[in-house]
Amino acid sequence: MIQVGIVGGTGYTGVELLRLLVNHPGAEVSVITSRAEAGVPVADLYPNLRGHLTLEFTPPDVDVLSQCDVVFFATPHGVAQAMMPQLIDRGVRVIDLSADFRIRDQQVWEQWYGQAHACPELIETAVYGLPETSREAIASAQLVACPGCYPTATQLALIPLLEKNLVDPSDLVVNAASGASGAGRQANVDNLLMEISDSFKAYACGGHRHLPEIEQGLSDVQPAAAEPVALTFVPHLLPIIRGIHATCYASLTDDSISEEQLHQLFVDRYANEPFVDVLPLGTHPQTRTVKSSNMCRLAVFKPQGKNKVVVLSVIDNLTKGASGQAIQNMNIMFGLAENTGLEQVALLP
Amino acid sequence: MIQVGIVGGTGYTGVELLRLLVNHPGAEVSVITSRAEAGVPVADLYPNLRGHLTLEFTPPDVDVLSQCDVVFFATPHGVAQAMMPQLIDRGVRVIDLSADFRIRDQQVWEQWYGQAHACPELIETAVYGLPETSREAIASAQLVACPGCYPTATQLALIPLLEKNLVDPSDLVVNAASGASGAGRQANVDNLLMEISDSFKAYACGGHRHLPEIEQGLSDVQPAAAEPVALTFVPHLLPIIRGIHATCYASLTDDSISEEQLHQLFVDRYANEPFVDVLPLGTHPQTRTVKSSNMCRLAVFKPQGKNKVVVLSVIDNLTKGASGQAIQNMNIMFGLAENTGLEQVALLP
Amino acid sequence: MIQVGIVGGTGYTGVELLRLLVNHPGAEVSVITSRAEAGVPVADLYPNLRGHLTLEFTPPDVDVLSQCDVVFFATPHGVAQAMMPQLIDRGVRVIDLSADFRIRDQQVWEQWYGQAHACPELIETAVYGLPETSREAIASAQLVACPGCYPTATQLALIPLLEKNLVDPSDLVVNAASGASGAGRQANVDNLLMEISDSFKAYACGGHRHLPEIEQGLSDVQPAAAEPVALTFVPHLLPIIRGIHATCYASLTDDSISEEQLHQLFVDRYANEPFVDVLPLGTHPQTRTVKSSNMCRLAVFKPQGKNKVVVLSVIDNLTKGASGQAIQNMNIMFGLAENTGLEQVALLP
Amino acid sequence: MIQVGIVGGTGYTGVELLRLLVNHPGAEVSVITSRAEAGVPVADLYPNLRGHLTLEFTPPDVDVLSQCDVVFFATPHGVAQAMMPQLIDRGVRVIDLSADFRIRDQQVWEQWYGQAHACPELIETAVYGLPETSREAIASAQLVACPGCYPTATQLALIPLLEKNLVDPSDLVVNAASGASGAGRQANVDNLLMEISDSFKAYACGGHRHLPEIEQGLSDVQPAAAEPVALTFVPHLLPIIRGIHATCYASLTDDSISEEQLHQLFVDRYANEPFVDVLPLGTHPQTRTVKSSNMCRLAVFKPQGKNKVVVLSVIDNLTKGASGQAIQNMNIMFGLAENTGLEQVALLP
Repeated sequence: MIQVGIVGGTGYTGVELLRLLVNHPGAEVSVITSRAEAGVPVADLYPNLRGHLTLEFTPPDVDVLSQCDVVFFATPHGVAQAMMPQLIDRGVRVIDLSADFRIRDQQVWEQWYGQAHACPELIETAVYGLPETSREAIASAQLVACPGCYPTATQLALIPLLEKNLVDPSDLVVNAASGASGAGRQANVDNLLMEISDSFKAYACGGHRHLPEIEQGLSDVQPAAAEPVALTFVPHLLPIIRGIHATCYASLTDDSISEEQLHQLFVDRYANEPFVDVLPLGTHPQTRTVKSSNMCRLAVFKPQGKNKVVVLSVIDNLTKGASGQAIQNMNIMFGLAENTGLEQVALLP
Repeated sequence: MIQVGIVGGTGYTGVELLRLLVNHPGAEVSVITSRAEAGVPVADLYPNLRGHLTLEFTPPDVDVLSQCDVVFFATPHGVAQAMMPQLIDRGVRVIDLSADFRIRDQQVWEQWYGQAHACPELIETAVYGLPETSREAIASAQLVACPGCYPTATQLALIPLLEKNLVDPSDLVVNAASGASGAGRQANVDNLLMEISDSFKAYACGGHRHLPEIEQGLSDVQPAAAEPVALTFVPHLLPIIRGIHATCYASLTDDSISEEQLHQLFVDRYANEPFVDVLPLGTHPQTRTVKSSNMCRLAVFKPQGKNKVVVLSVIDNLTKGASGQAIQNMNIMFGLAENTGLEQVALLP
Repeated sequence: MIQVGIVGGTGYTGVELLRLLVNHPGAEVSVITSRAEAGVPVADLYPNLRGHLTLEFTPPDVDVLSQCDVVFFATPHGVAQAMMPQLIDRGVRVIDLSADFRIRDQQVWEQWYGQAHACPELIETAVYGLPETSREAIASAQLVACPGCYPTATQLALIPLLEKNLVDPSDLVVNAASGASGAGRQANVDNLLMEISDSFKAYACGGHRHLPEIEQGLSDVQPAAAEPVALTFVPHLLPIIRGIHATCYASLTDDSISEEQLHQLFVDRYANEPFVDVLPLGTHPQTRTVKSSNMCRLAVFKPQGKNKVVVLSVIDNLTKGASGQAIQNMNIMFGLAENTGLEQVALLP
Repeated sequence: MIQVGIVGGTGYTGVELLRLLVNHPGAEVSVITSRAEAGVPVADLYPNLRGHLTLEFTPPDVDVLSQCDVVFFATPHGVAQAMMPQLIDRGVRVIDLSADFRIRDQQVWEQWYGQAHACPELIETAVYGLPETSREAIASAQLVACPGCYPTATQLALIPLLEKNLVDPSDLVVNAASGASGAGRQANVDNLLMEISDSFKAYACGGHRHLPEIEQGLSDVQPAAAEPVALTFVPHLLPIIRGIHATCYASLTDDSISEEQLHQLFVDRYANEPFVDVLPLGTHPQTRTVKSSNMCRLAVFKPQGKNKVVVLSVIDNLTKGASGQAIQNMNIMFGLAENTGLEQVALLP
């Protein structure tokens, strides 16, 4: 039984880790930390866990966390990097759901996140936790940096095209929309039901922190001679709790490739992936078909035979976009079947 | 492995049965019927099941269904009673999610449902499938009539009070609200998102079919000398998909009983129930804390020390209010642990 | 042109006042205050007002406010009473949307609101601003205390019954539900979309501040010899922005009165009211039929001929439940037609 | 007083016309037709109109409609063209909200709408009713074809760029999202609250009927020598009732133009437009800031200084996207101030 610690368990990725781990047959949560809620039973904060978990929050303590086989960081950016060196030194394996170790270029990270990185020496040891590209490296990693929610949906949509250099990498457009849980459980007027429930808007159109992460991930899969990736990324806020939908537009370098061929490319690329589902031609994915599940569903279109390929991608931002993918990484790291504890059927209706 | 048949699998209680059964360790769905969708893979209609189920819908056929150990009817009222005698004759066990066998008084049923009953001879053999009152009878039943969604939430809220004759049974008020999935998956202008998503209303204030079922269930638990039950029941439509909230008002016959004593009564009554959770004093249940789970959560209040007791009750109308409770009944009937396959944590947020 | 001042214009009742007043043919907003947003154009905070209003927020200043013909307080309780004596002394007419002057019994107010009242001497001069009971007093009042949202919906539902002493005043049950805008525009985790948008709950079941206000208002309309009013009031939170629905239950003292007679009683009582609409027998009101309008719609039922009468009442909590009613009061106070500026059709769909 | 007839008043654009016209100071609805609802008071179908309108639906009758000064068609495509010649012959002015006369190329229309056009001879006499490009022609038109909802939002976003030939017209991407009311008031499982309220999806990715209309409208404003317009258009379905958000991407032909210059271009282009609002630099529009109003709000970005310009555009699909724009056209046709009856403030919150 893998002993699990969770740092920062009061947020939405924390409760999502718990929802999945309390029924995971190979893992057990032995400690969950929160300074603010120390001493409070977790089920008092999250009543859906009543009857499933009797743990209380405890203050974060490296000695206690070091007893765990694996520690998840479900914290805002900037927190994991502060505690990381001590845990790494003691040999604990760490899965970081935050942005701290996703970007390999320290300067890029510091520019987009507006602060100095507290342990740059660990950045290069971190493995980017997207199993569909990095399964082997994850298996032996000590520190896994889980991808962001938008980057997960977007990379899975565009990787097959960029791996084969079928599109102009300098003319990518990603129009994405996220449920509000992506903003976290912070007291904030902007995320009140009264402000966003009956509305829709773009945000961060001038630049979103997930942009450099997506560009890095896509660059990594390009063949040697390819042009640099340049992407226009506009996120939008959906008046729902969970779900990301990415609509990705790319210009085909060879106009003659058919919609069927593009579809087959995706089917082949993901044939052995347990959590990527390529829909039949002509079908559109819906975020509800992945709600509460770890699945990513994709569809490929070539509208009116023009030279644009459109890839639609949906995930649950808290599951495949965060906590589910983190557990998928844990399964890989500890040699379990990759889908252990992750076979929930999406909640529909 | 229990072989399961489902009649009428295209509705919401059908897909909910499938969501729960595909991961049930002791049961396997071997046939699912629909005349309209015969030949269509179930996962084409419900894409959340892609990767979990390869079954196709088939036309209903008694010979095929008779091969099953248990058959669930997830049909509108009036359907199960037509096919029931043949299945019962062949010894199949049946769990009926519809209203056909819930009411013991044939005339009352015919009056409220506006049609003649097609097999009245089976009505008295049916066991009302509320495990919290009828666990033993369910275990040996051939035909179980699963309670309606409102009746489940309401009876669990009021049973402890009526069993002890603590309230005036002739002055009960139940103000309940349901998510829209209770209306089923019918093409109907009244249930379009545009008609109900930004609104709230009472409906069937003059009389709802669940009223006689609730009155029957409550009467069954009264002590011998008690006055007859008379209840005012007003259902409301919530602009959400899943969830029932019942707010139940009763007049205490003995004013001196305290809120703490009332709370303790509920705690004791449900101490051994796996799917009834009595919240701490002063806490209010929320429908989201039971969404996608088989749990019922209850709270008890005695406002301002007046002689009214208020009991709040929440369930997921598709789970504890329908398909989850049906599987709970199946577990009881086949000697499995009652919570087998039903330990999902409610989806929050 | 009536010159209007608004104190506390950054909240939802403030922006609702502005929405209605910018198109009011007889009034003009000349000052709107906010300490926190002083200097900010109102339309920067509320972009729906771009093109309709060029005012900026200014710090509250009695001298400036005294130039107005009428000042609206759209503030949390406790604020209006602090500034009130100065404004009253200078002869300004005041319409207070907060709770400060609604309760005539100072001790009751202090008990429910948990603080000492800062100007008890003005309490008895305040007129309760429910036009349907107090039109004449409002016309000549200097200080009008606008009713709360729940009290407006509830009193309009029960007044015809209590005026005629047709029901047992000691056995009233009001089960009400409100859209989330009733909670105001405060940064609060509890009102995030992620916490309440896909859920429903009761709150303040043990006692809500609107209870004594409702009991006072109902007592005021009783005939001399009637028994005291005692009411059980349970509010619930709807996952919508606007709308209140009150479901009111009362026990008829004379069983023989028919549903038709009850309905006629309501039709007659409100025949000349511009903002109360009694629906045809058998019809249920929906909150969307009053959204953004100043209308209250009512329906009356006597289910199954039992001795309970059920009255359903819907209003928009920000309009008839707050800012619309405040403007209705202003119209009365200044001798305008009562519906001036208030003829918006409810937004449907 | 302009006498107004409405054909097909039972749908959402019909009730929206009524909402706006009952308070229009210069127009009066004298007839509203529906075969299915003939004899039914309009306010029975749309209770928000109770107290505002006593009209009943009548069967469509050319003689009756010919008495009107103007007839609005709020019908599905294919209906208006059947009755149009008779009305035109009798000299009635007509404002068609359907798609029947929007496309000038008969073959294109027949290809996308899958039917033969019933009165092609009138196509060329129809004026496309986008006031921001065609105000003068509208003023003297007998037949005005109101733009579709997506085309309105998209054209207003892209016209300033195409008029000046600043972007590559062959590489336009429009990613748009609409509230569900765009689908109309049809009984359809796909638009049940249970199917779409907690989800998001693209639809018609392979080709949507508004594509040729947008391409035609944009081509019309290009300077003489410009390359042909080619646009990739992907619509999405929002789980809200009202609102369209278009996110438009174009490649700048001259990289050196700054975000400020682009913004100024939009400010200048729309300086005199009563219903187009260009937001300050850096601001994002929200659909709620135009809900129930006739306003279009725009924002312009040039992310990271790359060569893409992104224009964000929001309208209420039922108002500026349909009925509000139709009334704006009526005002122009009859010489009224263009904003007569259209000054509602958007409903926020």
